[in-house]
Amino acid sequence: MSLLVLGTVAFDTIETPFGKAERIIGGAGTYICWSASQFYNDIKLVSVIGDDYPQDALDALTARGVNLDGVEKRVGEKSFFWAGKYHLDMNSRDTLVTELNVLANFSPKLPESYKNPEMLLLGNFAPAIQMQVLNQLNARPKLVAMDTMNFWMDIAMDDLKKVLKQVDVLIINDEEARQLSGQYSLVKAARLIREMGPKYLVIKKGEHGALLFYGVHVFFVPALPLEEVFDPTGAGDTFAGGFMGYLAKTGDCSLNGMKRALVYGSVAASFCVEAFGPNRLKEINKDDMKSRTLQFLELMEVTLEDIV
Amino acid sequence: MSLLVLGTVAFDTIETPFGKAERIIGGAGTYICWSASQFYNDIKLVSVIGDDYPQDALDALTARGVNLDGVEKRVGEKSFFWAGKYHLDMNSRDTLVTELNVLANFSPKLPESYKNPEMLLLGNFAPAIQMQVLNQLNARPKLVAMDTMNFWMDIAMDDLKKVLKQVDVLIINDEEARQLSGQYSLVKAARLIREMGPKYLVIKKGEHGALLFYGVHVFFVPALPLEEVFDPTGAGDTFAGGFMGYLAKTGDCSLNGMKRALVYGSVAASFCVEAFGPNRLKEINKDDMKSRTLQFLELMEVTLEDIV
Repeated sequence: MSLLVLGTVAFDTIETPFGKAERIIGGAGTYICWSASQFYNDIKLVSVIGDDYPQDALDALTARGVNLDGVEKRVGEKSFFWAGKYHLDMNSRDTLVTELNVLANFSPKLPESYKNPEMLLLGNFAPAIQMQVLNQLNARPKLVAMDTMNFWMDIAMDDLKKVLKQVDVLIINDEEARQLSGQYSLVKAARLIREMGPKYLVIKKGEHGALLFYGVHVFFVPALPLEEVFDPTGAGDTFAGGFMGYLAKTGDCSLNGMKRALVYGSVAASFCVEAFGPNRLKEINKDDMKSRTLQFLELMEVTLEDIV
Repeated sequence: MSLLVLGTVAFDTIETPFGKAERIIGGAGTYICWSASQFYNDIKLVSVIGDDYPQDALDALTARGVNLDGVEKRVGEKSFFWAGKYHLDMNSRDTLVTELNVLANFSPKLPESYKNPEMLLLGNFAPAIQMQVLNQLNARPKLVAMDTMNFWMDIAMDDLKKVLKQVDVLIINDEEARQLSGQYSLVKAARLIREMGPKYLVIKKGEHGALLFYGVHVFFVPALPLEEVFDPTGAGDTFAGGFMGYLAKTGDCSLNGMKRALVYGSVAASFCVEAFGPNRLKEINKDDMKSRTLQFLELMEVTLEDIV
């Protein structure tokens, strides 16, 4: 197995009711790699940064086994920057600043060593960029997963639909599923979206967990109820990263394998929200993962032998 | 075992995006009894109606094994009436009319045969009325469960807190848990609320499922994702009724027994929302319950032997 990831590497300024973090490292690619590397160590990242990006943040990822040969560094340019502010309920946020910088005219060029991944996660990016990555591969990976967002549905729906045809697993949130399908009911939305290409659909519902639709099957994984959600930034990417990292580790794409991967995605996401940025993901170890996994087991486990 | 239920018996006029139902039978007591009687047949209802209430609706409950000796019929008065309209998302609604009628000066008088229940469910009612029921019992039931709502927190918090001290299981929704505790985090809310009396706290989250807090344990039951939610009226009461009906059937108040009861509450609620009022609950049989329980099993079931 090897896992290829497309995702942004960025600076974020985040304001929550608990405080403010200025220009910390972020971006979907960052969260995905920190999360996936909890499970699996042959990860290759495709992204782009400016020359303002701190080398130690890159070194930390390399030390986790993440190959950064595909991260283009543009001299004289600035990294992608996002600033946002969360409302009191932590469920909604306002974007204050979006500076595309190096993303504005990014066109990924994959190193030769990147062209035969067995698993691919196309993080949220312009669909045309996602397609460029797909088109440079020597063979179709065993599993292709993709994230996207409302913004691309608004301005690049045709491109998005082309990528969707190539995708096995689509990982989006409930609002995005509703916009993509035009259906409020997630069950109806899931049927329509899977007709667009993906066999598997994962619908993330934030603090309300996530659903997996596959064939006639539906599976639900809760989010862990937490004392405090400190910063939700990156939780969805962390979820996707954990999901794909676990699948890359096991290679098990059966329904049960997918269910397990979903639980581990939710386990990883439960750590992400406990501190600003990816900080908590950087400090946890296998024992932390184990004990939290046991909490998920208790949260979900019930025996129902005595069905009425 | 025997299950004593306090709950309103009412007329409802319900408007949803799918249509309108005029003056159909409703009320928490109605939903609770239709749901609990899927599991258990020694149920006694305490309530009050006017002489406008249809005898066949009462006979249908009696035929399910629900004892109505404690339902006071006031000649010359009208039954409680509520009218509401759901918004397009079916998650929020406006109350259009509330006519208390017989509820205005209700003071329950329990028949002798009602005074030794092993289980008690105090449906949403003025806390003073809930206390009157508790005070008429010859002995404390094995398990006392209670529902309430924001309205009573606004106007009768002192009374409510007195009842809470007598209660084993509180069943409320997330918004109510937040108001009662003054905490946004449901984990923090759960801790504070359990300090008020209830050992068990069930927090209903509508289409997002429900949480059980007990000791250091947290359990989550999802709601079944449905093609269409036709009418959510009474879903919470149906959930509570299924929960208590199952507990009355098994007498098993262990953590696992409670978890199972929560699943069956969610199974029952998944039927309730499929038609106007309690209509769907009236037509389902044991086979329907069984096959939906299997859907819940698939929705929740995952094996995680290979913990990372």
